[in-house]
Amino acid sequence: MVMVNTPDKYFLSSGSAEGYSALNAFDNALLKAKVGNTNLVRMSSIVPPKCQQVHEIDLPYGALVPLAYASKTSQNPGETITSAIAVAIPEDDTKPGVIMEHSAIGEKGPTEEQVVNMVKEAMKIRNEKIKEIKVVSSTHTVEKIGTTFACCVLWY
Amino acid sequence: MVMVNTPDKYFLSSGSAEGYSALNAFDNALLKAKVGNTNLVRMSSIVPPKCQQVHEIDLPYGALVPLAYASKTSQNPGETITSAIAVAIPEDDTKPGVIMEHSAIGEKGPTEEQVVNMVKEAMKIRNEKIKEIKVVSSTHTVEKIGTTFACCVLWY
Amino acid sequence: MVMVNTPDKYFLSSGSAEGYSALNAFDNALLKAKVGNTNLVRMSSIVPPKCQQVHEIDLPYGALVPLAYASKTSQNPGETITSAIAVAIPEDDTKPGVIMEHSAIGEKGPTEEQVVNMVKEAMKIRNEKIKEIKVVSSTHTVEKIGTTFACCVLWY
Repeated sequence: MVMVNTPDKYFLSSGSAEGYSALNAFDNALLKAKVGNTNLVRMSSIVPPKCQQVHEIDLPYGALVPLAYASKTSQNPGETITSAIAVAIPEDDTKPGVIMEHSAIGEKGPTEEQVVNMVKEAMKIRNEKIKEIKVVSSTHTVEKIGTTFACCVLWY
Repeated sequence: MVMVNTPDKYFLSSGSAEGYSALNAFDNALLKAKVGNTNLVRMSSIVPPKCQQVHEIDLPYGALVPLAYASKTSQNPGETITSAIAVAIPEDDTKPGVIMEHSAIGEKGPTEEQVVNMVKEAMKIRNEKIKEIKVVSSTHTVEKIGTTFACCVLWY
Repeated sequence: MVMVNTPDKYFLSSGSAEGYSALNAFDNALLKAKVGNTNLVRMSSIVPPKCQQVHEIDLPYGALVPLAYASKTSQNPGETITSAIAVAIPEDDTKPGVIMEHSAIGEKGPTEEQVVNMVKEAMKIRNEKIKEIKVVSSTHTVEKIGTTFACCVLWY
């Protein structure tokens, strides 16, 4: 891997699904989130300065795609699970934004609240004023084997 | 990392080993699988369209190598463990294939069977007819600390 | 990701921190280790031949940065935790070095000792004489939620 460049686009998405196995449920959740036919490479969790949000993304089949994500799989029928991701963009556009991930048993509300608190804290530690915060999440009540997934893809 | 390209070769391999620690057992299993002197970057699990299988691969020492893998480490003497990976290639060569990973306590038979079911399910969800399925696995009965490993490397 | 090249620099660092959540503690430990505003991509654990250690590194905000790391998070107040990483460089400079990671409850001494034994074992398995071993670690006694982190970044 030639590692010289820095992504300039980010894409938020989420999805949830049931599956034949835990890994199939994860695969199905990725397909729902429109990132499922790529090779996701997980990374820790910075939005490069001036990186722009895109709402459509054309990822080639099998491309190596860097992303941060939250995911939770449960095999407890009736259990409700949520995965959420928050992105904080700083007022100073020469500085990086931060991505935080959080998954929990429970509904969307408290999980999104927690991930927003986490990203606020990360910006406070960096002494950066926040221009905006974006949150995406997915919630699912398990039938047999279910996965929730929320992601921030970085791209070029 | 400049992330513009998509791999065009894949390489299946597997290995198992004992080791001084869990991480040494993993390192030794990688060496047995002929991927041990590289920097493996784990990814989720797609074979790009028209990607060709190779049976020999020349990975430079320390190169960054994307792959999907199954691995299991056990410290229970006498326990038999298996890691398996399956690749399904679609009839339509403009579409991606899928890689699935599965590890379990037990012999090769049921673990390979399960990973094949998983990859069939992943292709069914995608409405793709399967041209062929390939499976590799490694099985090991633990002496002190043992690891099984099976992988699909993507390369250029 | 275009994956043709191999890193030629390595950078050892470590840090520990408390945080609002486990992920914030990890984020804060990364900042202490001076790798916190990048997108870390975790890999297994080889120093390419002739790779040179650097003691300062300029990582662009949000760059995709390959590294090996040890990390441990604890939410048990009063518990002391340590993360350590060891690098063994071979006498034969055409051969790769090995990076090993180890985290444990306890002080620096035994954790560093264990990671050094691990890396010696990895070089013995490879039949390589060791030119030098380098170790970095971080130790932390938990207040509420604490993380220790030690890493070897590869770079260009």
